[in-house]
Amino acid sequence: MTTDLQLMGRDARRASFALLGLGRAQKDALLQTIIDQLQVHEATILEANAEDVKEAEAQGLSGAMLDRLLLTPERLAGIREDIHTVIGLPDPVGEDLDSKLLANGMRLSRRRIPLGVLGVIYEARPNVTIDVAVLALKTGNAAILRGGKETLRSNLALVAVIHRALKIHDLPKAAIGLIADPDRALVAQLLKLDSHVDMIIPRGGAGLHQLCKEQATIPVITGGIGICHLFVDQSADLSRALEVIENAKVQRPTVCNALDTLLVHQAVAAALLPKVKARLAPQGVTLKGCQASQKLVELEAAEEGDFDREWLSLTLGIKVVADVDDAIDHIRDHSSEHSESILTQDMANARYFAASINSAAVYINASTRFTDGSQFGLGAEVAVSTQKLHARGPMGLEALTTYKWLVEGDYHIRG
Amino acid sequence: MTTDLQLMGRDARRASFALLGLGRAQKDALLQTIIDQLQVHEATILEANAEDVKEAEAQGLSGAMLDRLLLTPERLAGIREDIHTVIGLPDPVGEDLDSKLLANGMRLSRRRIPLGVLGVIYEARPNVTIDVAVLALKTGNAAILRGGKETLRSNLALVAVIHRALKIHDLPKAAIGLIADPDRALVAQLLKLDSHVDMIIPRGGAGLHQLCKEQATIPVITGGIGICHLFVDQSADLSRALEVIENAKVQRPTVCNALDTLLVHQAVAAALLPKVKARLAPQGVTLKGCQASQKLVELEAAEEGDFDREWLSLTLGIKVVADVDDAIDHIRDHSSEHSESILTQDMANARYFAASINSAAVYINASTRFTDGSQFGLGAEVAVSTQKLHARGPMGLEALTTYKWLVEGDYHIRG
Repeated sequence: MTTDLQLMGRDARRASFALLGLGRAQKDALLQTIIDQLQVHEATILEANAEDVKEAEAQGLSGAMLDRLLLTPERLAGIREDIHTVIGLPDPVGEDLDSKLLANGMRLSRRRIPLGVLGVIYEARPNVTIDVAVLALKTGNAAILRGGKETLRSNLALVAVIHRALKIHDLPKAAIGLIADPDRALVAQLLKLDSHVDMIIPRGGAGLHQLCKEQATIPVITGGIGICHLFVDQSADLSRALEVIENAKVQRPTVCNALDTLLVHQAVAAALLPKVKARLAPQGVTLKGCQASQKLVELEAAEEGDFDREWLSLTLGIKVVADVDDAIDHIRDHSSEHSESILTQDMANARYFAASINSAAVYINASTRFTDGSQFGLGAEVAVSTQKLHARGPMGLEALTTYKWLVEGDYHIRG
Repeated sequence: MTTDLQLMGRDARRASFALLGLGRAQKDALLQTIIDQLQVHEATILEANAEDVKEAEAQGLSGAMLDRLLLTPERLAGIREDIHTVIGLPDPVGEDLDSKLLANGMRLSRRRIPLGVLGVIYEARPNVTIDVAVLALKTGNAAILRGGKETLRSNLALVAVIHRALKIHDLPKAAIGLIADPDRALVAQLLKLDSHVDMIIPRGGAGLHQLCKEQATIPVITGGIGICHLFVDQSADLSRALEVIENAKVQRPTVCNALDTLLVHQAVAAALLPKVKARLAPQGVTLKGCQASQKLVELEAAEEGDFDREWLSLTLGIKVVADVDDAIDHIRDHSSEHSESILTQDMANARYFAASINSAAVYINASTRFTDGSQFGLGAEVAVSTQKLHARGPMGLEALTTYKWLVEGDYHIRG
């Protein structure tokens, strides 16, 4: 099977024009049909997924990867529930961001429109297939999907369901395209399909993001990597700080908003660090500290590069800092601009930290674990961006839109 | 002379942190000092520019390029006047885009912040040096500039003035850096300096934009290329339409928002096209038309590819279309998504055109020539974007900012 990406891109672009004509009611009806069709074809989807899982097991994939790959009736019910949530969200398309009457009598508005065609590259998670398709369609976008090869049968079954729903609503199936050919060269081609694709969303690890940044001629939303910091200032309430540190590190250590490095003001390090160890060590946390911290509590020595690592595990870097400026300097040097927090009772330091740190999410007296679309009330999360253009942090439906300037005149000419 | 871009990038990043602390009053005072210093050092600037012009003449540069390169006392006065205008503009930095109290009592705001460090690549226009530096500083951004080699002496003199102003205000001169080494490899290096540069703005022709899109690992604002269309619908007021066509084509044919292709509804083509020729031909306009148009008026035959060209001159493509759908199809196939217009008295067609065309600027009954920062009331124009992420069409000061999520809690933890 050969895949002609130019053709696929052209068809996706045309399909995006068909989606332009849909109002919210029609788009939500389409999503409801996807829910219905997912239910109707559940057995087929689970069979396809079982084959993917079987082959992955035979190839010796790790337990964590197998778990991500697996679909169950419960997980499919969860996916349908998530689509219900998206149906309930307002449609951002069509809103005027602003509108004014110019001095010459022309009306000038910035109107929110779909981006057009999304390119989404992800790994062995079949749930992403439905997730991305639903968010794209809700915002009137077409999408070209490229999932991990381990999950190809599942993805084909899921996309077949979406195609049935599109057909029922008399919409072109090219609105959601799947690159089924496992040839890796197609990823590179997709990244350069700038005449047909408007935005690339990589959903995967650092390597995938780097590849997209380097090869794409299309704007890429990079993110997902969080080297997150929490600074305990001299004035912090230490017993409450301990709760926040525990939450940020332990509640879900494998995600990007989990704490990586704890920065402690030198004046409270002797009081705090033994408590941190007493609280976290029994939960399996390994502490890796700077020289100063090693004098205050027994822990492993932090090695070269440890402060530049996203742990994604029960390891916590510890550094004693002189003051808020020292903490800010460390964060500027080592952060991935995802999420950073200060714990303090000092109004001036809180203000200063908030003004000096420009990561996607900056916290005063809270756990970094809140950086998340649902926690921020976005209803759905497309991705978490740590770059600065277009969208930052958790991206909701709005991040799948852009705007055009709409100008209404009466045969106006420029003088 | 060798240029260490890593070092330059690092210094620019550090300088951007120093700019973060400035409020509007301080930034406007800095811009006023730039005005003053431009006046104080006018002779030096004009001398340096005269040398650039002399060398460019010796190398046989065209009259248009020499004109762009030339600085005069009047042009410098105009540049100072433009800085006054920027001083008068509101500072977008620090504004909260929105702010809400979450159910758990945390306050969540999206706060507007500078992008950080801009990379600007441009051609032999010394005025861009001041223009970009001033817009960057007004929004608290550092910038690394790379101007055309023909204008190096002028740029060095202008950047020296900016450095003096920065020094007077005790700010690091790395806030505005100039890559003075003419080695073209440095452009490629700048485009991959993603650890230190947040956005690339190319200000030049299609070739420069393509280079940036292909080579950059940093988000690029592409644009500036306008293949602009005007569709005269069956119901349009033809005598007023003629005024708009003339304005869009003739008023300033060398710019990106000038008209490239006139689409005429078949029902009015016989009435309109002879009038278009009678009006435009005496002004030096060459008409290049489709087969149908050739039967209605004497004009050159449009050749293969003519409808995909940005003319930037007194040439106008002409195409007779069946109806509004045919016009929309032509625009979707040939436009660069810059500016398109419909002239019509038909409410339904106006609505349909406006909903179907998603170019950066879409006009109903107006000339395409209005797509411009000052016409749209932005006060200053950074660039005109024809891509879809971050900013579209004329980009004002806001386009040099991004936002961060600011979260204030009371030792909140995630449940």
